[in-house]
Amino acid sequence: MTRIAIVCPGKPLRRERAERVEALAAAEFPHVDLVFHPQCFEQAGHFAGDEATRRDAFVEMANDPQIDAIWFGMGGYGACRIAGEAMERLGDPALGKAYLGYSDAGTLLGALYRRKCGRQVHGPLVGDIKRDGGEDAIRRVLRYFAGHDVPLEEGLDDRPHVAFNLMTLAMLVGTDLMPDLEDHVVLVEEVAEHLYAVDRLFFHVTQHIRGAAGIRLGRISAVPENDRPFGTDAQGIARYWCEKTGISYLGRADIGHDAANALVPFGTTKSRTTQ
Amino acid sequence: MTRIAIVCPGKPLRRERAERVEALAAAEFPHVDLVFHPQCFEQAGHFAGDEATRRDAFVEMANDPQIDAIWFGMGGYGACRIAGEAMERLGDPALGKAYLGYSDAGTLLGALYRRKCGRQVHGPLVGDIKRDGGEDAIRRVLRYFAGHDVPLEEGLDDRPHVAFNLMTLAMLVGTDLMPDLEDHVVLVEEVAEHLYAVDRLFFHVTQHIRGAAGIRLGRISAVPENDRPFGTDAQGIARYWCEKTGISYLGRADIGHDAANALVPFGTTKSRTTQ
Repeated sequence: MTRIAIVCPGKPLRRERAERVEALAAAEFPHVDLVFHPQCFEQAGHFAGDEATRRDAFVEMANDPQIDAIWFGMGGYGACRIAGEAMERLGDPALGKAYLGYSDAGTLLGALYRRKCGRQVHGPLVGDIKRDGGEDAIRRVLRYFAGHDVPLEEGLDDRPHVAFNLMTLAMLVGTDLMPDLEDHVVLVEEVAEHLYAVDRLFFHVTQHIRGAAGIRLGRISAVPENDRPFGTDAQGIARYWCEKTGISYLGRADIGHDAANALVPFGTTKSRTTQ
Repeated sequence: MTRIAIVCPGKPLRRERAERVEALAAAEFPHVDLVFHPQCFEQAGHFAGDEATRRDAFVEMANDPQIDAIWFGMGGYGACRIAGEAMERLGDPALGKAYLGYSDAGTLLGALYRRKCGRQVHGPLVGDIKRDGGEDAIRRVLRYFAGHDVPLEEGLDDRPHVAFNLMTLAMLVGTDLMPDLEDHVVLVEEVAEHLYAVDRLFFHVTQHIRGAAGIRLGRISAVPENDRPFGTDAQGIARYWCEKTGISYLGRADIGHDAANALVPFGTTKSRTTQ
């Protein structure tokens, strides 16, 4: 039996979405047990409960030796408010787990990767059940957790990889939570930001990760219409800043705020194959 | 005669706004000569001309010994694309000038402050003539440039001060353009960002400027309505992150994306009084 705990470091998970994922798992993955921490459904202003509630739910599940993996239920915003204190409270049982999610939850993946705590995986959230094709996204995650054969992001080679939402990574760089990305291939994606905002995030991030092996560009989706065209597309932006900072631009990646969002285990091939 | 050159490192200035400012200056400030660089009115995609055009206009005016001050025409976005190369091209005549603006132009103020090149002043842009009360904002800047008595931000004490748009500062921290803000009082303002976005910017900025003497909060204006309340206001956010990072929260500041936006000369009292 694989026991997977679900917590929400940012915004809450809607109960009907949790139930849909639970039903899918029960029907198709008899050897997977999903444990939804009640914190997932709390609400305190913007967040799924206050700081102590969110932090303690994550720490409780990460430190529970009966739990094999932590699956982040939702992104939104809020992980950076609990990540520092949460890291200080992690014990030995947290080291053996997989941690999976993306978007705002990438803050915790980054902080865990920095501390070499567990196996961090960029991939769909529980709440992605809501998307077109969401059931397949959920199946992909459950197959991964259950140790079944499942496709990962294409082109993961011998180099260490990480994947982040661009804004999340931009807020992470230079902070106490930021992992060393020297020699890493860094995959980034963004949603609902103007191209000028994507451009300034690229300015900031490329300045901070100059030692990276390269950048791959995921989907830059739902770009709001501006009062004038930016003048270049997202790939043009990525190439521009990579060239300016001497980072290799390595082409596209199959990640984004959508159901196709690929699984990207952090680190090297070794960490990809030990599940 | 005080000769002031206007350039646009980000987005273009509308010609009718330039004409209104020119007319006001001609009528009320006979000893001020405004030199609008033609680059102000160019357009290339999002920007007031391409990178080389914007960079070269700024460098040409900064290096012109006949020019006493550089006044940034508009903000928007784009200064970070030219600031690095522009700094490398500045010569001795650039050292004696005042540089005035805010928002995106803060990128250049920060980079100039880092290089100890000239006197940097946070204050209204030429384009602010468009705002309610815009003429008074323009008069304040022209009085400052002309060496007349003019009120600055209240409460500027012996400590060095800087003022930035929060997003601009967040993109600047940790980059090649960032000045050392050790022991500085840092004033920040923001416009048209959700409170959750303000919160994550505060997370990022406070992590990067831990040595600052304190933070003062300008106006956080035109906050878009979200699908749920954030749970605290802008001052609550500032206090939260200041407390978490051990930076003093020093109260409000009279800066923002509006006509009341106060003048804040960068640095210490000395730099404030030498005009």
